[in-house]
Amino acid sequence: MTILDIIDKKRLKQELTFEEIKYVVDNFVNGNIPDYQMSALLMAMVINGMTEKETIDLTKVMIDSGDIIDLSSISGIKVDKHSTGGVGDKTTLILAPLVASCGVKVVKMSGRGLGHTGGTIDKLEAIKGFKVNLSVNEFIKQVNDIGVAITSQTGNLVPADKKIYALRDVTGTVSSIPLIATSIMSKKIASGADKIVIDVKVGNGALIKTIEEARILANLMIKIGKQYGKDVVCVLSDMNQPLGQTIGNGLEVVEAIHVLRVKGSIKLRELVITLGSIMVSLGKQIALEEAKKEIMTNLINGQAYQKFMEMVKAQNGDIDKINISFKSYSVKSKQEGYINGIDALGIGEIVRKLGGGRFHKEDEINYGVGILLEKSVGEYVKQGDKLLTVYYDEKRIDEQEILNCFMIEKERKEEKPLIYEIIE
Amino acid sequence: MTILDIIDKKRLKQELTFEEIKYVVDNFVNGNIPDYQMSALLMAMVINGMTEKETIDLTKVMIDSGDIIDLSSISGIKVDKHSTGGVGDKTTLILAPLVASCGVKVVKMSGRGLGHTGGTIDKLEAIKGFKVNLSVNEFIKQVNDIGVAITSQTGNLVPADKKIYALRDVTGTVSSIPLIATSIMSKKIASGADKIVIDVKVGNGALIKTIEEARILANLMIKIGKQYGKDVVCVLSDMNQPLGQTIGNGLEVVEAIHVLRVKGSIKLRELVITLGSIMVSLGKQIALEEAKKEIMTNLINGQAYQKFMEMVKAQNGDIDKINISFKSYSVKSKQEGYINGIDALGIGEIVRKLGGGRFHKEDEINYGVGILLEKSVGEYVKQGDKLLTVYYDEKRIDEQEILNCFMIEKERKEEKPLIYEIIE
Repeated sequence: MTILDIIDKKRLKQELTFEEIKYVVDNFVNGNIPDYQMSALLMAMVINGMTEKETIDLTKVMIDSGDIIDLSSISGIKVDKHSTGGVGDKTTLILAPLVASCGVKVVKMSGRGLGHTGGTIDKLEAIKGFKVNLSVNEFIKQVNDIGVAITSQTGNLVPADKKIYALRDVTGTVSSIPLIATSIMSKKIASGADKIVIDVKVGNGALIKTIEEARILANLMIKIGKQYGKDVVCVLSDMNQPLGQTIGNGLEVVEAIHVLRVKGSIKLRELVITLGSIMVSLGKQIALEEAKKEIMTNLINGQAYQKFMEMVKAQNGDIDKINISFKSYSVKSKQEGYINGIDALGIGEIVRKLGGGRFHKEDEINYGVGILLEKSVGEYVKQGDKLLTVYYDEKRIDEQEILNCFMIEKERKEEKPLIYEIIE
Repeated sequence: MTILDIIDKKRLKQELTFEEIKYVVDNFVNGNIPDYQMSALLMAMVINGMTEKETIDLTKVMIDSGDIIDLSSISGIKVDKHSTGGVGDKTTLILAPLVASCGVKVVKMSGRGLGHTGGTIDKLEAIKGFKVNLSVNEFIKQVNDIGVAITSQTGNLVPADKKIYALRDVTGTVSSIPLIATSIMSKKIASGADKIVIDVKVGNGALIKTIEEARILANLMIKIGKQYGKDVVCVLSDMNQPLGQTIGNGLEVVEAIHVLRVKGSIKLRELVITLGSIMVSLGKQIALEEAKKEIMTNLINGQAYQKFMEMVKAQNGDIDKINISFKSYSVKSKQEGYINGIDALGIGEIVRKLGGGRFHKEDEINYGVGILLEKSVGEYVKQGDKLLTVYYDEKRIDEQEILNCFMIEKERKEEKPLIYEIIE
């Protein structure tokens, strides 16, 4: 078996065996297969696809490349949640304490921002002092103590994914449903939760652009989960416009707190309630309607907010010190009409340029910068109406580039629904 | 324009512009684009293909990456010949002096062996003292003096091809008709000949496995040639069995001399006459039949052999010292029947294992080792009849591996023709 034989097979669209997949992953991780051979194979996988068997085999080999976290010392059903990545997606910050406040153990390992999408860990770091890198023992202890913890990937979890993802990111080989499925599921399975809810983002601001692709991805992840006895539920949600009113790390923390205090965007709350109800239903093994009632209650009565504060305190965060830039300017509409769209990808890229995201892995993030949307999709604006406020540090963004993100038209178009489907 | 945008375009099977292709090649050659990004792009090109325009553009950019040799100080029409690579293919050693003896200027830049196929330069090095790396001036002077010279690539010729080919070789991205066409044609055009005859090898021992693919490659190369005012003629010839009786560098030189002295395999002579007639016809602008007469005459009357000896002398070779191993053993048939096939790929790999070819670029070649076929396809053999003699140095090859290369059957099958088509 040589890597060239394996590349040839995939180039010719043949199915790789478990042994071949294991050979590739093991030898790439230990450095015997160089990046340039792996990227050629990855491109062949992206273009020629992978069978379900190959995808399941690759997930297993990737899980086996590192440790599997043992959460058995946490009693009861452990629930995890994942988002495939969006713009302005701060749901985890709200969901984790909200679900925990209903009595479900939330074990959440999060990532950093990728491309134009934000990451929960970057957002939490906007809270001064917040400890994002808990050890496995600290993580388990905190979940046992208060029912919830959010940490960056801990331990030697799926090192193969880390190395493969870094290469995919710089070789144009990210857009592959099987590779996305293995990357997500290997980490979710290795991190030990029993039930996993996945928010599959669909639209121009997401990796997955169509509902058809999102369905394939969802079903693939559910199937992989089954192999390990994990219940996986996928919610397909819209990512053609930013989620909520804020984009940028510190601003998003503030918006999350708003929602936990019964304010904030309707759409964001709708998504939180949908995902939270599924998590509680899975975690407590109760009907979805019953779970939804508990979620609504705790969102309104302050329990969720209180749990959030407990979590921030447990992880050493100082909630009075959230990093928000002092410098800001408004952008006003030059047109009159209905806002029929706000370009999620465009807004995501603008925030990245402001310093809120990374262009290279080593880039430092400016937690204070971002955008506060003053208008939502569907609203009517006149010339001179404020569309948004930009929080910046050094670099201002060309006004026209921002205005280009708004689709303002005479006729009001029907808005896309927030939740497309729930697949389980 | 970024490399990731360009990779994405090719991944989605879109046509790259001239500017994009130039950006890629220039930045790969100067080191700004790393191997791992280039190999991902190459795999996308291999799988998704390249349009004719992209292929012509890539050839131009590759030619422009280095020098173009100016052969204008050689009077008359300069003819070159190329083979896409086969097993036992020593035709250049015979053809170059033969065609020159007919009064046509032969300007031949050759390569080394690749994979299981041999290279003319390696063969010539089996002649003690033979200088294979002539400078451009030495090359021109020799062609002006005696009408023929064979040298390894001289000057800074298509550095882009050198770098791209080295990467393709180790990333499973060799099998692409457009990439093969650009690699061959960029070098042929940059090396300055007016007329180019290309022997497109077809079969299991060649890179191109089917006549259909060979036709596409031939037509593509002819089209590229036209862009530069070069007449290109392609001969599609069989490479399912080794060409001639010998495989291995020193042995092949000896066989070439045999043919120049009116001995040796009929097939090898047939190919030499076909290619030589075309070269003389192009070089002297005469009818093919007339050219063939000249070729036949000079092959028989010793003029070709004399020109070969002139060339060897001009390039400092000592014809009495051809490297042939002293150690040998025979392999005998264990079956009775007709030899319906001799596996070119298998024999090529065996000679490589004996040390006659390279597995890695830095491998040193053992010029003396190789195989002398004692039987040809179509012959009847009995048990115990000698099939071949192995010339070895250190490593002997398992007899069964050798026997597996022979297809011996009760019924005689019709042999494939040597020449499939001539395309111009």
